Amino acid sequence: MRISAEDAADLAEGAALLGAGGGGDTTHGAALMRHALDRHGPVRLVRADELAPDAWVIPVAAIGAVSVMVERLPGDTEFVAAVRAMERHLGVRAAALHGLEAAGINALLPVAAAAWLGLPLVDADGMGRAFPRLDQTVFDLAGLPPAPLALAEPSGTQMIITAPEGASLERLARAVLPALGGWAATAQWPMRASTSRRHALHGTVSRALRLGRALRHARRHADERDRALAQMNGRRLGTGVVIEVRQRDGAAHTGTVTIENTAGRRTLRLDMADEYLLAIDDGVVTAHVPEIIALLHARTWRPIFTEEVAVGQHVDVLAVPAPAALGDPATRRLMGPEAFGLDLPDDLVTAGGGGGARPCA
Amino acid sequence: MRISAEDAADLAEGAALLGAGGGGDTTHGAALMRHALDRHGPVRLVRADELAPDAWVIPVAAIGAVSVMVERLPGDTEFVAAVRAMERHLGVRAAALHGLEAAGINALLPVAAAAWLGLPLVDADGMGRAFPRLDQTVFDLAGLPPAPLALAEPSGTQMIITAPEGASLERLARAVLPALGGWAATAQWPMRASTSRRHALHGTVSRALRLGRALRHARRHADERDRALAQMNGRRLGTGVVIEVRQRDGAAHTGTVTIENTAGRRTLRLDMADEYLLAIDDGVVTAHVPEIIALLHARTWRPIFTEEVAVGQHVDVLAVPAPAALGDPATRRLMGPEAFGLDLPDDLVTAGGGGGARPCA
Repeated sequence: MRISAEDAADLAEGAALLGAGGGGDTTHGAALMRHALDRHGPVRLVRADELAPDAWVIPVAAIGAVSVMVERLPGDTEFVAAVRAMERHLGVRAAALHGLEAAGINALLPVAAAAWLGLPLVDADGMGRAFPRLDQTVFDLAGLPPAPLALAEPSGTQMIITAPEGASLERLARAVLPALGGWAATAQWPMRASTSRRHALHGTVSRALRLGRALRHARRHADERDRALAQMNGRRLGTGVVIEVRQRDGAAHTGTVTIENTAGRRTLRLDMADEYLLAIDDGVVTAHVPEIIALLHARTWRPIFTEEVAVGQHVDVLAVPAPAALGDPATRRLMGPEAFGLDLPDDLVTAGGGGGARPCA
Repeated sequence: MRISAEDAADLAEGAALLGAGGGGDTTHGAALMRHALDRHGPVRLVRADELAPDAWVIPVAAIGAVSVMVERLPGDTEFVAAVRAMERHLGVRAAALHGLEAAGINALLPVAAAAWLGLPLVDADGMGRAFPRLDQTVFDLAGLPPAPLALAEPSGTQMIITAPEGASLERLARAVLPALGGWAATAQWPMRASTSRRHALHGTVSRALRLGRALRHARRHADERDRALAQMNGRRLGTGVVIEVRQRDGAAHTGTVTIENTAGRRTLRLDMADEYLLAIDDGVVTAHVPEIIALLHARTWRPIFTEEVAVGQHVDVLAVPAPAALGDPATRRLMGPEAFGLDLPDDLVTAGGGGGARPCA
């Protein structure tokens, strides 16, 4: 399977949906990816088991503020530089790139990087959706070493960070970002193909592409939305009008969104912190992280990012399953409601990422 | 020539004197150096021209707050780690270590590091005294590339930073220090022995040792202080009592010190910013950076650091020449009064680092 320039728009749509309101605006990433694919040709999407078991795969992502990225646009140098720095540090050559976060802008940049580097991309990632931190991955849960971490920024500065076991590379990387201008390309968690095969979440890139196709189709054919939703294996949590947006700590992307549900005059509340984390329908939890909760403009079915949601918007609220592996009880600490300080009864965290309907305390 | 554990106290004294009131308290560095020399034996001090021209020499130093260093003491791991990280990054082995700042604690740590690594130390550095920034070196003036920069801190985190020409590695390194716990061992400006031979300030480590010996002798024999001062090629700028200490911006080590000069009832003013930068005797500039201005307790001849100076202290004020190369007009921007925003007439900056006596505007 190949990702070509013609797939760019669909992949961007799917990535935005999987971002669950976060993961970063995909507009710039989509343009960059399309440009890279136009110029260098399609990127081959491979399964980890198609590679030699001891081949190196290098996950790449952007870290930092997407708002800054708009002012200091990613180009064709920093992701290449991060991968090359990692290769040089390890004394290896990458056989393929790998995603860390198959949602939001970080689903698109690895495709662009693979095009620039002339490498295939493994159809897998470490999250299967978007999370606020780059260490909220199944790689961390598997105890894989995140180091070394390579950082590169547009004006040419590069860093390689290594740290002893237990140290937070995420914290270190965030701490150096101001010195790097606010965001950086990162290569992290270098691993063998056999390790990816064993621990990564597979098929997540092609899934984003499929979801994007379904979403774009549904956008143009409003009467086929229920069918599209079924294709996406998703469900509708509600439809209505945003009547209140409460921000916590003055940050546009954290707080609660209240929606007056058209059907039955019920009230749907979404909790958000970078992503939409929790849906409560008249006091009943109907979806929660790691399940993907997406807010769409009712008319266009375009995803609404958490920082864009506003009173008066007519919205559809959807839920799409996270990869089944994220439903594992062991993931709660890192990727479940607990990771976000949400106080839900234990038995609400069900396999498949939630979906149970229980009264909320 | 070898530096043994028995030299530790003398070298520390000389390093403190050359620190010109700054460069970091040498107490802990001296203890660490003595311990390293005790355990691993003497360190051979070599001239750059004793090494093969293409041999690699790696300068090491500590960067960050010495006050933090007291809480997170340097050990025998982080300097070794910084050098090893640099060697690995460059794919070379160091033939010798090299100092960046042959004053204060940074004159002592390279000796300890050489002992730990079993390497000789080049009798040279990049400053010939102390400066606030690690890029205030003759290497910078010579246009040598400061990158890569290796950082290592006591709990095991390591960073390698590379940056494009013109970027400030110093700024980057300072920016990452909070994430590293406040200070780090650094290896920077890796160079061939032939480059050190051509550009470094030579004989500065052995000079610190000689100065320390003279100072310690003078301490015990108050009647021989003038002779010791002559041996040090220094001069006395004044003797008296500190009657005022004015801090700028609430920082203990920046501001002015006013001394009532015993001889002739004149007033001696010292400007300080990390180091003592300027001596003004009744309105006449009698010494200025890069010449080394040292404030000593009158009775013990122990150097007084800028953050220790206090009203009521009886002091001797000495000036000791900086290496002649620092008197070059080209160094003014980086190492002369201009680098510290001191507005002195052009012709005051004389070869040898000042010493002219002119009315101060």
